[in-house]
Amino acid sequence: MTKVSGFPEFLPEGRLVELRATDILRSVFELHGFAGIATRALEPLADLSRKGEITKEVYVVRRLHAAEGDKDEMGLHFDLTVPFARYVTEHAGGLTFPFRRYQIQPAWRGERPQEGRYREFWQADIDVVGDGELPFHHDIEVVLVMLEACARLSAELGIPPVLVRINNRKLIQGFYEGLGLTDPLAVIQAVDKLAKTGRQAVAAQLGAMGIDEATAGRILDFAAIETDAAGLAAAVGRLGVTGETMAEGIEEVTRLFEAAGRRFPGAVVIDCKIARGLDYYTGSVFEFELAGREGLGSIAAGGRYDSLATSGKRSYPGVGVSFGITRVFAPLIAKGQLVASRRVPSAVLVAVDAESERAAADAVAGALRTRGIPCEVSPTADRYGRQIRFADRRGIPFVWFGGPAGEVKDIRSGEQVAADAGAWAPPVADLTPAIVNNQ
Amino acid sequence: MTKVSGFPEFLPEGRLVELRATDILRSVFELHGFAGIATRALEPLADLSRKGEITKEVYVVRRLHAAEGDKDEMGLHFDLTVPFARYVTEHAGGLTFPFRRYQIQPAWRGERPQEGRYREFWQADIDVVGDGELPFHHDIEVVLVMLEACARLSAELGIPPVLVRINNRKLIQGFYEGLGLTDPLAVIQAVDKLAKTGRQAVAAQLGAMGIDEATAGRILDFAAIETDAAGLAAAVGRLGVTGETMAEGIEEVTRLFEAAGRRFPGAVVIDCKIARGLDYYTGSVFEFELAGREGLGSIAAGGRYDSLATSGKRSYPGVGVSFGITRVFAPLIAKGQLVASRRVPSAVLVAVDAESERAAADAVAGALRTRGIPCEVSPTADRYGRQIRFADRRGIPFVWFGGPAGEVKDIRSGEQVAADAGAWAPPVADLTPAIVNNQ
Repeated sequence: MTKVSGFPEFLPEGRLVELRATDILRSVFELHGFAGIATRALEPLADLSRKGEITKEVYVVRRLHAAEGDKDEMGLHFDLTVPFARYVTEHAGGLTFPFRRYQIQPAWRGERPQEGRYREFWQADIDVVGDGELPFHHDIEVVLVMLEACARLSAELGIPPVLVRINNRKLIQGFYEGLGLTDPLAVIQAVDKLAKTGRQAVAAQLGAMGIDEATAGRILDFAAIETDAAGLAAAVGRLGVTGETMAEGIEEVTRLFEAAGRRFPGAVVIDCKIARGLDYYTGSVFEFELAGREGLGSIAAGGRYDSLATSGKRSYPGVGVSFGITRVFAPLIAKGQLVASRRVPSAVLVAVDAESERAAADAVAGALRTRGIPCEVSPTADRYGRQIRFADRRGIPFVWFGGPAGEVKDIRSGEQVAADAGAWAPPVADLTPAIVNNQ
Repeated sequence: MTKVSGFPEFLPEGRLVELRATDILRSVFELHGFAGIATRALEPLADLSRKGEITKEVYVVRRLHAAEGDKDEMGLHFDLTVPFARYVTEHAGGLTFPFRRYQIQPAWRGERPQEGRYREFWQADIDVVGDGELPFHHDIEVVLVMLEACARLSAELGIPPVLVRINNRKLIQGFYEGLGLTDPLAVIQAVDKLAKTGRQAVAAQLGAMGIDEATAGRILDFAAIETDAAGLAAAVGRLGVTGETMAEGIEEVTRLFEAAGRRFPGAVVIDCKIARGLDYYTGSVFEFELAGREGLGSIAAGGRYDSLATSGKRSYPGVGVSFGITRVFAPLIAKGQLVASRRVPSAVLVAVDAESERAAADAVAGALRTRGIPCEVSPTADRYGRQIRFADRRGIPFVWFGGPAGEVKDIRSGEQVAADAGAWAPPVADLTPAIVNNQ
C-alpha cells in the first residue's frame, strides 16, 4: 500500500464537503442555463502538446501490453479547455451556438506537489462559445455567474468573499505597442510573474529581453495600476500612451467593471498586472482570489479568446472561467476547517430490538425513505445504549425505537417522542448533513 | 482531431440522461445511508497487477518527462473495488465499521472496443465492509438497494425491469468438493463461461482439465439449475451430493431469495451457473440483467468476500454490487432511444427587445433564478420570431417578453399570458428537462 502525494482523498465527512461544493456550482450553472458536458479523461497526445511550456507536466497513458511503437499514444487532460476545444469542433454539427456549457471534472498534472498544487484536481469550468462571433455581454455573463457561484459557496460553506481582478489584453497589447515593443506576448508572460517574483525580478527579466530601463519602468508603472473605472482613464493617461486598440480595451474593461460592480459592489477591481500567461487570450482576462487568502493564488481565472478552435473555415470565439474546486477546498478539508456534521447521509438510525425484529426495523426505514428521509438500520441488535453510541459516532441525530408505531429520540437533546414512521419527519435542517466551518 | 473509439461522449441532451441516471443512483444510495467517497484515478501499478488475468488491460501512466527508471509507476484503476480496498486499509483509522460506501466514478480498461464494452466507463458501486466480521443481512441489503435503484431507473428513465440471478459460492464449492474436485476455482472459472460459450464448449474444457465425463455431466446438470427457493433443495437433492458447506450455501441463497423476492416479487431467480470469475468471492454472488436485453450481459454484479483486504492482523469482509452506468446507458443514448426533452437546463428564454433593454431582460432572469427557475437571456436582440426559434431549437418551453411585468409564451401551445417575474413559475414538469424514452 503506497501513499501517493498530490492526489488528495478524503474521509466521507470531508468528501461530503467537496460534494456539496460541486452541487452548489452545478446548481448555479444550471440556473443560468449552462448545459453540462463530460469529456473523456484521455486525449491524443498530439492534441495535448500544443501549448509549449505546459506539456512537460502531461501524464502519458499507454496500455500495459501495447504493441511496440503504438502510435495512438494518449495523455490525461491537464485542464478542461483543451478537451472542450476538441469537443466543440468534433461535435459542432450537433451543437447550437452560442454554446454555453459547464464541465466539472478532474484534470491531472505531473507537477511537484506542494501546498495548493495537486497532481489530480477538480475543476469547474463555464464557457460560452460562438460560431464565428460572440457579443461582449457574454464576458460580463461568465464573470457574474462565477461571482454568483462564489457568493453561494461563501454563504453556504463559509469560504471568504471573492475579489475579481480584471484587465483586458487589448489594453495591455495597445499599451505595449505604443511603447514600441516587438514581442508583447513575451512581456506579458514576464509581467504575469509580478505577483510571485516582485518588481525587481521582472525588471531584470525585461532588461535581459533587451528592453531599456525607462521602458521597463513604464511597463511596471502600468502593471502597478489598481483602480476602479473612474480612475482608469486618468491612470493610463498619465502614462502618455494612446491608441485605438488601447481605447477598445479600456472601454471593455470599464463595461465589465461597471456591470459586475453593480451586481457585486466592491467585488471587482481593475488590475493592470493581470495578464494570464496563456497565448490564446485576446480580450478580457480575470482572476478571482479569496479575500484574506491571497497567498492561495487565484482560485478561478479565465478570459476571452478569439478562437478556441478552428475547423476548416469555422472559428469559435469564446469566453470562460475555470474554478479550482480542489485548490479551494482540499486544504480546508484536510485541515478540518470544513467538515460535514455527520459521516453518513442518514438522518435516522433505526434501532433493532432483536435479530428476530429486523424486519420491523426495515419496515420503519422503508417508510421513512418513501418520504425522502435518509436512514439506516442498526447492523446489530445490541442493547440500546450501544446502538445510540453507534449513531453518535457517525453524527446521526435521531434514533428510532420499537417499530413503525414507535418512538424517536433526538440524541443531541435526549428528547424522545412517540412517532409514526408513516408521518414523522426530522426538521429540514437535519435532513441532510450540514457543513460546519470551524474557522 | 482524432476520434477515439471506446470512449463514449455525448451531446448535452445525451449527457443530461447520463447525469439523471447518476443522480438517481446517488439519491437511492444516500437514502439508504451509504456514504459517498471518491478515490484518485491512479493507483500504484503494483496494486493493480494482483489479479492475474485482468492486468493486461491496465493503462499505465507516467509523466512525459519522468526520470529514466522512475519506479513509482502508476496505472488507471480498472474497477472501483481495488481502489476501495486500498482506501479502506489506508484510512481504516478514520472510518467507522461496518462502513457502507457508494462510489460513482469512471474506470478504464484497454479492451478492444465493441458493443457494450468501453475503454472508459462509469460504475456505481455500493459495498458494506466490516472490521473482522459482517452479518449476512448486509448481503440482502446490497441486493435490495440495487434493486430499488434499478426500479427507480426503470420508473423514471424507462429502462426494462431487472432480473437478479443469485447463487452462493459455498453451495458451488461444497458441491464440487462433494464430487471430489481438487481445484474448484478452476472449475468455477470454466463454468462461468457457460452462458457465453455453451454447454459443449465447457464440457470440453472440463475434460481437458482431466475431469471424467460423468462428473462433468453432474457439474453441468448442477449449473443448469434455475429455480426458486422451494425448488432448490429438491433440485440439488437429485444430484446426490450433501455436505456442511453446501447446506450453508443453500441456507444463505434461500434467505437472500426470500427476502429479495418479498420486496421485489419475480425479480429474483436462483441460478446455479452464476459463479463470478473472480477469486475473491466466498459466499453470495449475484448478476443483474435487463429483462429482454439479456444479450447485453450483466448490468450489475457482485457478491460477498471474506476479505476485501487485510492490514496487519485486521481483515475486512464485505459484500457489494457494482452497476455499469455506461454499459446500460451509453448504447441507449447513442441510439437516441433515451434523450432529454431539451438541450439546456433553461425552462425559460428571456427575450431581449433591443440591446439597450438587455438590463431589463437580465432583471427578469435574475428574479426567476431567485425562485429556482433555470433560464437564460437571449444572446441577440433579434426580432421575436427568431428569438422564439432560438428557444425552439434548444427545446426551451417558455419565452418571456417585455421586462419584469411582461408576458410569457408557452411556445408549444402558443398560449401567451401576462406574468410577473417575481411570481410566475412554470409547471413543475417543465422546471427541469424531462427524459424521453423513444422506444
